[in-house]
Amino acid sequence: MLNATFGNAAELIIAGIALSKGLTNVVKASITGSIIGNVLFVLGLSVLFGGVKYKEQYFNRAGARTSAVSLSLAAIGLVIPTLFHLTAYSSPGGWSPLVEQKLSLGIAIVLFLTYFCVLGFTLRTHKYFFQCRDQDIVESSTQWSPAKGVTILLISTAVVAVLSEFLVGTIENVRHSVGVTEVFIGVIVVAIVGNAAEHSTAILMAMKNKMNLSVGIAIGFSLQIALFVAPVLIFLSYLFGRPMDLEFTMPEVFAVVASVYILFQISGDGETNWIEGVQLLSVYVILGILFFYLPEPQHVTP
Amino acid sequence: MLNATFGNAAELIIAGIALSKGLTNVVKASITGSIIGNVLFVLGLSVLFGGVKYKEQYFNRAGARTSAVSLSLAAIGLVIPTLFHLTAYSSPGGWSPLVEQKLSLGIAIVLFLTYFCVLGFTLRTHKYFFQCRDQDIVESSTQWSPAKGVTILLISTAVVAVLSEFLVGTIENVRHSVGVTEVFIGVIVVAIVGNAAEHSTAILMAMKNKMNLSVGIAIGFSLQIALFVAPVLIFLSYLFGRPMDLEFTMPEVFAVVASVYILFQISGDGETNWIEGVQLLSVYVILGILFFYLPEPQHVTP
Amino acid sequence: MLNATFGNAAELIIAGIALSKGLTNVVKASITGSIIGNVLFVLGLSVLFGGVKYKEQYFNRAGARTSAVSLSLAAIGLVIPTLFHLTAYSSPGGWSPLVEQKLSLGIAIVLFLTYFCVLGFTLRTHKYFFQCRDQDIVESSTQWSPAKGVTILLISTAVVAVLSEFLVGTIENVRHSVGVTEVFIGVIVVAIVGNAAEHSTAILMAMKNKMNLSVGIAIGFSLQIALFVAPVLIFLSYLFGRPMDLEFTMPEVFAVVASVYILFQISGDGETNWIEGVQLLSVYVILGILFFYLPEPQHVTP
Repeated sequence: MLNATFGNAAELIIAGIALSKGLTNVVKASITGSIIGNVLFVLGLSVLFGGVKYKEQYFNRAGARTSAVSLSLAAIGLVIPTLFHLTAYSSPGGWSPLVEQKLSLGIAIVLFLTYFCVLGFTLRTHKYFFQCRDQDIVESSTQWSPAKGVTILLISTAVVAVLSEFLVGTIENVRHSVGVTEVFIGVIVVAIVGNAAEHSTAILMAMKNKMNLSVGIAIGFSLQIALFVAPVLIFLSYLFGRPMDLEFTMPEVFAVVASVYILFQISGDGETNWIEGVQLLSVYVILGILFFYLPEPQHVTP
Repeated sequence: MLNATFGNAAELIIAGIALSKGLTNVVKASITGSIIGNVLFVLGLSVLFGGVKYKEQYFNRAGARTSAVSLSLAAIGLVIPTLFHLTAYSSPGGWSPLVEQKLSLGIAIVLFLTYFCVLGFTLRTHKYFFQCRDQDIVESSTQWSPAKGVTILLISTAVVAVLSEFLVGTIENVRHSVGVTEVFIGVIVVAIVGNAAEHSTAILMAMKNKMNLSVGIAIGFSLQIALFVAPVLIFLSYLFGRPMDLEFTMPEVFAVVASVYILFQISGDGETNWIEGVQLLSVYVILGILFFYLPEPQHVTP
Repeated sequence: MLNATFGNAAELIIAGIALSKGLTNVVKASITGSIIGNVLFVLGLSVLFGGVKYKEQYFNRAGARTSAVSLSLAAIGLVIPTLFHLTAYSSPGGWSPLVEQKLSLGIAIVLFLTYFCVLGFTLRTHKYFFQCRDQDIVESSTQWSPAKGVTILLISTAVVAVLSEFLVGTIENVRHSVGVTEVFIGVIVVAIVGNAAEHSTAILMAMKNKMNLSVGIAIGFSLQIALFVAPVLIFLSYLFGRPMDLEFTMPEVFAVVASVYILFQISGDGETNWIEGVQLLSVYVILGILFFYLPEPQHVTP
């Protein structure tokens, strides 16, 4: 959980800086990219590497199910502004950026409130749902003392802030020289680069047969992006005076829905094996191919 | 089961009167509204209230699964006319209201036949699937004698008929004065007002830890709307000489698909807890926000 | 497995001949038709007939789950070119047949590689996942000796080749005289006629209460069509110098997604009963009605 909050700090800072420069498309692409990157790429690699070493691995099914349902809920929330645009647009005078911003704000508030309910459920009323064996939890939580944890958090945040300033600044240049689109950079590049720490932790845990932690990191991270980071970015955008909506391109919406669906299928039985890692990665590669060939995003117009 | 048929009588009468006045959009909206209202709002409240009182509640998983698959089947049936319109419309001379009515009639017949198969399965061949403990069934079925049940059914039907005449009559007025759309009224208002009795029963049962009955009422009700009431309304519309099709607006189609999907995820493990109630209600609120901001429905044109 | 490969040979030959004559729409329709035909029609009949004889039937849930996830993955792969077309089309100069062919080729390669991973998983590392009781496997595999099997395979292939030459030749004639569309023939007629052998085997096994084999044939067959035959046809189309893409019409995409989804719901619990057969067949009939009324396919243009 600490790990996930940690990663979110980095994510929030990068996105906040991009937002203040008006790069809303990159911000939105990095939201979807983080979700599919964690669900497909990080979890896929973890399951694959773990599965190569251990024939079958187990994790807490009840906890994964709760998270998977929350992700589905978030996916529904992220589909709606796009659906609204598509539907309202064909109605004369029915669509306006202002109404879409209100709609997005409403959805962001619901997602944000749901996040705190999920937190309460996870940390308070049903804590036992998310634990596997006490030993795992203890071992990983005693690695760092709270003081050490906070220090590292602060230092890393500073480093991330500098790096992300640099990262966001160079996106425009890279984009023109390499010839890939904003969405491809947001969805694929930023998501992988920005979360390297979580990736390696999740994979290491899987190789130590601590699948519960590994799945927890990958799903927990996506969940926090969808239910916490995305709403906070909407709220921030109002502070910056450049309201952002939650409308995504059709391929982004599809990518999130497909990822969340595959995750639900794979996490439903509480066990993993290497082919499930391959399946997650295949979906990731297929989506990567799609985003690579897509022309510069046109936000949905029917 | 009696309860559900009872509710349907009210639903059918309200919709029948609206149909005879040519308010097909309200009728269709009340179909989708009843489905999502029961699956998300009623079940959500039941699971939440029950979950606040009891840490974990259990229901018969096999029965819920059969019902959830039937609802998915119904959702597929309700998506198709909209998909047909979208696809056929772009083909020159390919779409006509007549063909769409035939298509809808065909689907209605298949759904109607499936309903009787499901009834036979539920009440005859696999009755034990839907029972939890004998005691529950007995207790709730002995509350009313058959005679008392029928009397109450008849009286209530009369009351509902009068009320719905009034209800349908005032829709137009309310709509203009409050400034909300036909679809919002059908999907949110009619669905909640029209089914108040079922709502309270389902919630009460959940609070008595009779989750099996509670889930049975909420899912059973949606199922009967989708597989029985909707087809019967199509058949009725031919009697009234104003054939209705099963084409819904995109947001309605999405709302039904999303509700049925979330229901499947939540009912798959045969147990509920309060966060699942929150998740169902969050989806309901998000869909409510969508329908609130949507402009007056334009039936799908690409 | 032999059975499935066998059926694929027939499928590949029919499709190859159609491809060499430039009937890409029929080829694509027969891909989707084979998938939904096996998942809905063959499995539906098997489950129904088996379920009428036996109250509950069981199959290996872990194996079915792996196959169902692979089918979902394939469905995602088949949705993407259509989604790409829809999205890229609205971007000025964004869509070209060449880019779409590259995209389809990339997806075909990923699906093809995944197929061999799934094969390795099924036949090597996790063979026990797909076995039910030793007795079943032995009994069915001793029916034919390898030599007899190969001989029958060769003879049948020759017969199929002749028949399919004939079949493909007459499609155009039938189509005009009966007045049904290319897609309807591909999706409904070719899929049923072309796979009659598998159909009867799957149904027979279900009636002998060997549900594991029955489910294995129906799902395994769809899987091979989606992950092996479809990619090979793309590769072949390049040999013939008439590159085919994987773009399907919206109704085909919907039919595949709906079938795969219903399959996942039904196969999740490792047991079947007659109502599940009815549900699968209902979806098949509803989709059949859709394809019957659809006008001549317009490949997606927004």
